Amino acid sequence: MTGAGDIDRGRSEAGLVEAGLRELLDSLHPIGRHPVTGGYRRYAWTPADRECRDWFHRQARTRSLAYQVDRNGNQWAWWGEPRAGSVVTGSHLDSVPDGGAFDGPLGVVSSFVAIDLLRSRDIGPTRSVAVTNFADEEGARFGVACAGSRLLTGALDPDRASGLTDADGITMAEAMRTAGHDPDRLGRDEEALARIGAFVELHIEQGRAMVDLDGQPAVAVASAIWPHGRWRFDFAGRADHAGTTRLADRRDPMLPYARTVLAARAEADKRDCVATFGRLRVEPNGTNAIPSLVTAWLDARGPDAADVEALVAAVSDGSTAEVTRESWTPAVDFDRALRERLVRAVARYAGAVDAGGGAAAVPVLPTGAGHDAGILAAEVPTGMLFVRNPTGVSHSPAEHTELADCAAGVEALAAVVEELACR
Amino acid sequence: MTGAGDIDRGRSEAGLVEAGLRELLDSLHPIGRHPVTGGYRRYAWTPADRECRDWFHRQARTRSLAYQVDRNGNQWAWWGEPRAGSVVTGSHLDSVPDGGAFDGPLGVVSSFVAIDLLRSRDIGPTRSVAVTNFADEEGARFGVACAGSRLLTGALDPDRASGLTDADGITMAEAMRTAGHDPDRLGRDEEALARIGAFVELHIEQGRAMVDLDGQPAVAVASAIWPHGRWRFDFAGRADHAGTTRLADRRDPMLPYARTVLAARAEADKRDCVATFGRLRVEPNGTNAIPSLVTAWLDARGPDAADVEALVAAVSDGSTAEVTRESWTPAVDFDRALRERLVRAVARYAGAVDAGGGAAAVPVLPTGAGHDAGILAAEVPTGMLFVRNPTGVSHSPAEHTELADCAAGVEALAAVVEELACR
Repeated sequence: MTGAGDIDRGRSEAGLVEAGLRELLDSLHPIGRHPVTGGYRRYAWTPADRECRDWFHRQARTRSLAYQVDRNGNQWAWWGEPRAGSVVTGSHLDSVPDGGAFDGPLGVVSSFVAIDLLRSRDIGPTRSVAVTNFADEEGARFGVACAGSRLLTGALDPDRASGLTDADGITMAEAMRTAGHDPDRLGRDEEALARIGAFVELHIEQGRAMVDLDGQPAVAVASAIWPHGRWRFDFAGRADHAGTTRLADRRDPMLPYARTVLAARAEADKRDCVATFGRLRVEPNGTNAIPSLVTAWLDARGPDAADVEALVAAVSDGSTAEVTRESWTPAVDFDRALRERLVRAVARYAGAVDAGGGAAAVPVLPTGAGHDAGILAAEVPTGMLFVRNPTGVSHSPAEHTELADCAAGVEALAAVVEELACR
Repeated sequence: MTGAGDIDRGRSEAGLVEAGLRELLDSLHPIGRHPVTGGYRRYAWTPADRECRDWFHRQARTRSLAYQVDRNGNQWAWWGEPRAGSVVTGSHLDSVPDGGAFDGPLGVVSSFVAIDLLRSRDIGPTRSVAVTNFADEEGARFGVACAGSRLLTGALDPDRASGLTDADGITMAEAMRTAGHDPDRLGRDEEALARIGAFVELHIEQGRAMVDLDGQPAVAVASAIWPHGRWRFDFAGRADHAGTTRLADRRDPMLPYARTVLAARAEADKRDCVATFGRLRVEPNGTNAIPSLVTAWLDARGPDAADVEALVAAVSDGSTAEVTRESWTPAVDFDRALRERLVRAVARYAGAVDAGGGAAAVPVLPTGAGHDAGILAAEVPTGMLFVRNPTGVSHSPAEHTELADCAAGVEALAAVVEELACR
């Protein structure tokens, strides 16, 4: 039956979802936003991060969801009793330097609005549901991405995490303490892990794969995360006066750095990978001083781990730098059974709004970005939903997605939560 | 007559000079020294700079030299009455980031020790002599080199200087006020300028020209300063996620920057110039973020202005950057008559210690480094003495010169002061 009543319900639900999204996104909008760049600087365990965490706590309270912080600083809001085997959805609220408004927050916001939507339909969970905010996903401050989920699963050693330092030499342990979190109980948390029966993370797409597909679907399901890693290149030189040192007498590390940047691009191109030098430190960084040291970080990823490793080996061999692998994350293939349930749920939602009445095709795509979902995939069935990004721009103040697409994402996520927890 | 008495006098004088040098260099040694790098961070109008300025004031007081600070913050210590047409010698006490112990301080220290030496010989000035410490020679904090001497001559507009900002957004005027100097009277100072009848700056050599000469002379006289300038290159890009943005979709400014670094080296080599990219700023400077902006500063110098300009034009044309010339200093040919008097005085000193009794050849060399002497040369007869640098390393914690060579520098400077002011 698709009578007038259904159409009205559809309309008022769409209005409710968009209003809910707008309200939550607007309330996050000013937190940690740089007044000049317009980008977000919500680094883990800073005052801006604290404001985001307070916001999460308020959202839980407003909805009468039981609120928890686990031993590793991840936040949880419970629809139903906290118990083993629950359905968990969420993302993170911290940002890269000058990041956008959606990478992370959209997943948390959508989770709350999806619960609001299910409640408005009088649908309740038969299996408990939790919304999460994972701490320090971007690793912008201490250099290790997904620190909260890595600590939770034990993939990051708690002593190592505690001792990580930011640019001012402040350790993660000190930063946590300042922010009111006790760092003495960091580490693998069996109890918290056991509560995750399945984890689903909704995220803005961070490239142009969806918008370049036929039909430009608003929502897609993730198949895999590319293997990816970070390598530090230390190019040693000798500090000298830029005006008085003959070219022949120089040991200028900027030259091998420049050659290495171009080599990385060429090697990535050759292997259908991506490679980026986006972070750099120059000592002493004076206009009239030949540098004594150029330290640069290579980010490399691709569909195939062997190709990424071959790329980095070729670039390292051709350079004079000392190369240190700082992180490596193997490929993640998301749980196949869960993925199929996500596809069915999204198709059912999409079918419900499809004029022809049939189930629209749901794209299933890999991604080059790391996520907490990728870390948790080693422990529990995990999946992801992507929301279309019209420009593909991400990690930038210009990151953007249409409200209607976000609403489609909430509908899809609600269908997934209903599929997994409400039948 | 070269009897035993003279040899003894020579020995005890050498001991006095070396002891004086050691005492003054040692007393400056701890000020503004970074405990890890061992380099100096004596930036204008900071607490470290203040300590250096207090040190200068103490040296003047200890020697009963009248002490003055001019309107632009340059310090003066007077042997004789401050009056027009005096002989001025000195250098600066500030440093580049992680600079060495000699670039600047050696010229100030040598001036005081040269006065001590002349006094010990009962030689007094017939024309007043001043020792100076020029403020903010390196421009490390506010980006304009030789700010103190440029303000003094009017080559730097006082309003522009006042508004220059450091990395924390503090203006030079605020910094001066904090350090106890009134910035309201900055600008060309006719009275102070009129007092400089001639200016002689002693400086550690900053390359290997002297050590590569036959006989490795300890002291040389400057002929000229190469024309030199600084250009800012802004490479605009688009911030994007390093993992999810296809190579074809990127606008990564690190790639044209890398090509420009290599082009600058090649063009400099072709034209017998030097070119350096030693200072860089990357936005947002995140490992997994394609930069939105790479800003880099090119320092270029050479014996011929047309060659330097052609180098920069070729590099600019080949790059996608927006290029801004931030400074340009034409070639300085030091006053020929003064230069000949310096050569004669140094030869006389060198001859006095020459076993053969003849006047040793005094090398006369150009330099690629800017100095306050180069700024003052536009107004008054100006000259420079260089002290041998065994490695050529400068603007580095590893900058070094032998105490015996410094002592030779003091003897040469004393001969020059005697030649210009004591006959």
